[in-house]
Amino acid sequence: MLQPLIWTGHSLRVLDQRRLPNETVWSEYRDAAGVAEAIRSMQVRGAPAIAAAAAYGLAMEAQRHAGARGDRLPEVLEAAARVLLASRPTAVNLRWAVERMQKAAAACPDPAALPQVLVAEAERIAAEDVAVNRRIGDLGAALFARPVQVLTHCNTGALATAGYGTALGVVRRLHELGRLRQVLVDETRPYWQGARLTAYELAAEGIPHILITDSMAGHFMQRGQVDAVLVGADRIARNGDVANKIGTYTLAVLCRHHGIPFYVAAPVSTFDLTIATGEDIPIEERDPAEVTHVYGRRITPEGTQAAHPAFDVTPHELVTAIITERGVIHHPQPESVRAVLAAEDKTRAEGSTPA
Amino acid sequence: MLQPLIWTGHSLRVLDQRRLPNETVWSEYRDAAGVAEAIRSMQVRGAPAIAAAAAYGLAMEAQRHAGARGDRLPEVLEAAARVLLASRPTAVNLRWAVERMQKAAAACPDPAALPQVLVAEAERIAAEDVAVNRRIGDLGAALFARPVQVLTHCNTGALATAGYGTALGVVRRLHELGRLRQVLVDETRPYWQGARLTAYELAAEGIPHILITDSMAGHFMQRGQVDAVLVGADRIARNGDVANKIGTYTLAVLCRHHGIPFYVAAPVSTFDLTIATGEDIPIEERDPAEVTHVYGRRITPEGTQAAHPAFDVTPHELVTAIITERGVIHHPQPESVRAVLAAEDKTRAEGSTPA
Repeated sequence: MLQPLIWTGHSLRVLDQRRLPNETVWSEYRDAAGVAEAIRSMQVRGAPAIAAAAAYGLAMEAQRHAGARGDRLPEVLEAAARVLLASRPTAVNLRWAVERMQKAAAACPDPAALPQVLVAEAERIAAEDVAVNRRIGDLGAALFARPVQVLTHCNTGALATAGYGTALGVVRRLHELGRLRQVLVDETRPYWQGARLTAYELAAEGIPHILITDSMAGHFMQRGQVDAVLVGADRIARNGDVANKIGTYTLAVLCRHHGIPFYVAAPVSTFDLTIATGEDIPIEERDPAEVTHVYGRRITPEGTQAAHPAFDVTPHELVTAIITERGVIHHPQPESVRAVLAAEDKTRAEGSTPA
Repeated sequence: MLQPLIWTGHSLRVLDQRRLPNETVWSEYRDAAGVAEAIRSMQVRGAPAIAAAAAYGLAMEAQRHAGARGDRLPEVLEAAARVLLASRPTAVNLRWAVERMQKAAAACPDPAALPQVLVAEAERIAAEDVAVNRRIGDLGAALFARPVQVLTHCNTGALATAGYGTALGVVRRLHELGRLRQVLVDETRPYWQGARLTAYELAAEGIPHILITDSMAGHFMQRGQVDAVLVGADRIARNGDVANKIGTYTLAVLCRHHGIPFYVAAPVSTFDLTIATGEDIPIEERDPAEVTHVYGRRITPEGTQAAHPAFDVTPHELVTAIITERGVIHHPQPESVRAVLAAEDKTRAEGSTPA
C-alpha cells in the first residue's frame, strides 16, 4: 500500500509529494527541525500524515539527545515541539500528536528509556491511524446501499495519512465492496492535490475516476452526476464546523442547493474541543506565488496580486454527517459531536499492535 | 484602448490571446478559413469578438473572389459561412454576425459592390459592439449606488469584444465613476482567462484587482467581501437561461446562498430566440489535455482522463438581472426577456458611424 512516511528505526523517510506524480523522490530526516521543514514546504501534507511525521520528529529528538545530555531532554523536546507546532497552523492533528508524545514522555519514569518509549509511541500513532482509517472506511461505506458516483476534493488518501486514507479510504472501501461507479476528482487549485495526488492514488488502485476543474463541480451536480461529496478535514470545532482545503465550502453550498449529501471523513484527532465554532479556527495564508505560478512558470501578468487562503470553513449546518472512527455524527451540532466523541474507541485496541 | 482585432482594409490582424500576458503576438489572416482557425484555436475568444472576427472573415472572402469569379460569390460566401459557424458551437453571436452579413449580401443589388458593402457591414458590427458595450457599462453601473467590490469570471473585457467589454465594461464604468473598490478575479480554469487576460486588462487600466482561484469564491462571499458577481454570456435562451464559461453556474448558486446579486452583461446578439431553455444550448466539449496540461506540461499522472465542458448553463431563476444595451432585464423570464428585446435600440444610431 502507498505510504508517505517510512520509519527506518533512526530516521524518517518522507515521500516528496511536491514532485508527484512525475517523480518519486524520498527525503530522509533525522531531527524535528527537518521534519518541520518537510511539513512547512508540503513535502508531506494531509492532517493525519503531518501528525505522524511530527511524532517521529519528537522521537528522533529523544534518540539524538539520549546520551550525554539526557538530563536536558525535557527542554530539548519542548523546543522541538514548538518548532513542529509552528510548521502549519490550521490542521489540529499535529497538535494532538505532539501533545500525545509529550504525555508519553512525562509518563516515562526512566530517562534512559525515553527514546525507546517515544519511538514506540510514534509507531503506535502511525499504526493506529491506519486502523482508524479502515474503520472510517467501513462506517462511511455503510452509508451507501447502492453503487454511487462521488466527488472528492484535495487528497485524503494514503498519501495524506499514515495509510489507507480518510475520505479516500471510504472511496477505497466502496470500491472493494463493488459500490463505486466512479470518482470525480476536483483538481484542487492552487496546489493540484487532486490532479497530482488523488489521481495518482486512484490510478494505482485501479479505481475508476475522472479529473475535473474545481469550477466544474456545480455543472456535474446540475446534470445529476454526483450522488455524494466526500472530503476530509484539517480541524473541526466543537459544534461541527469544518476547516478543510480551500474550495470545500463551495462544494458544501453546491450540495445544499442540489440536495446532495455532503460527508466529512476525519479521525477524532481532528476535533479541537477548545474551539467553539469555525470562526475561531486560524486559516493559513500561503504564498500568493503558489497561485500566480505553476511549476515555476508565471501564469499572470508581472505584478499581479493574488490571495491564497489555504483553507475555508464549512458551517456544520451544511454538513450531512461527519464520519469518525467512533461513529457517524449525523447533522453535526454540539450535542451530537459530544455524544459520538464520548463513545468507546473500538480501534485503539486493534491499532495498538503494529503489524 | 486594448483591442483584439485590427482591420487593415484587406486583412484582419488578430492578437494571439493564447500567448498573453507574456507575449504580444499578432497573426494576420486574409480569408475565412484562417479566421475560423483563429477562433477554433482560441487566438481570438469571447462571444462578441468572435462575431466581429467572423464578419471580417466573410468580408475578406468577398474581396478575394470579387474579380473573375464574382458570379460564384454567393456560393463562396455560403461555404465560408459554414466553416466559420463550425469553429465554435456555444456562442451564438457568431451565428448572429454571419446571418447579418448574409442579409447585407442578399440586399446588395450590384455584385461588384459586394466587397465594399460587406467590409462596411463588418466595420459596423465592430463599431456597434463598442457602442453597445459602453451602453451596457452605463446601464450596469447605474445598478450600484455605492462603491462595491465585485467578483468576475473569465474575460469579458476589451479582449473578448470589439472593445471596452461587457461585464468588464460595467467594471470599467464603475471605476470611471469612482464606484469600484476592487475586483476579485477568478483565475478561470482550465484556460486561465481570468489570470491571464482579465488581470492583464485591469492592470493596463489601473483598476484595483486581486486574483483568486475559482475555488475561493465561496470563501470570500462567506466573509462578506463580494457585493456582486458580474459575468458575460455566450448564449441566452428565450427564458433567460444563460450559457457562459464553465464555473459560472457555481458562482450563481453561491450568490443565491449568500443573497448576493448575480448579474449577466451581454449584448442583445447573445440571445438565441430559437431556443426555449438552456437545456437546448449545445455545450462545447474541448480537449481534455487543456485540463491535464499547463503550457504543455502535464500536471496529472500519465493516462489520467479528464472532462472538459467549456461552458455551463445558469437557469434564469438564479440570475438577478441581464444587462443589455436595450435595458436591464430584472428577474429574467420569457415575458421580461421579450419586453426588453422589443425595446428600441438606442445604440444602433450611434454605432452606425464608425469613428
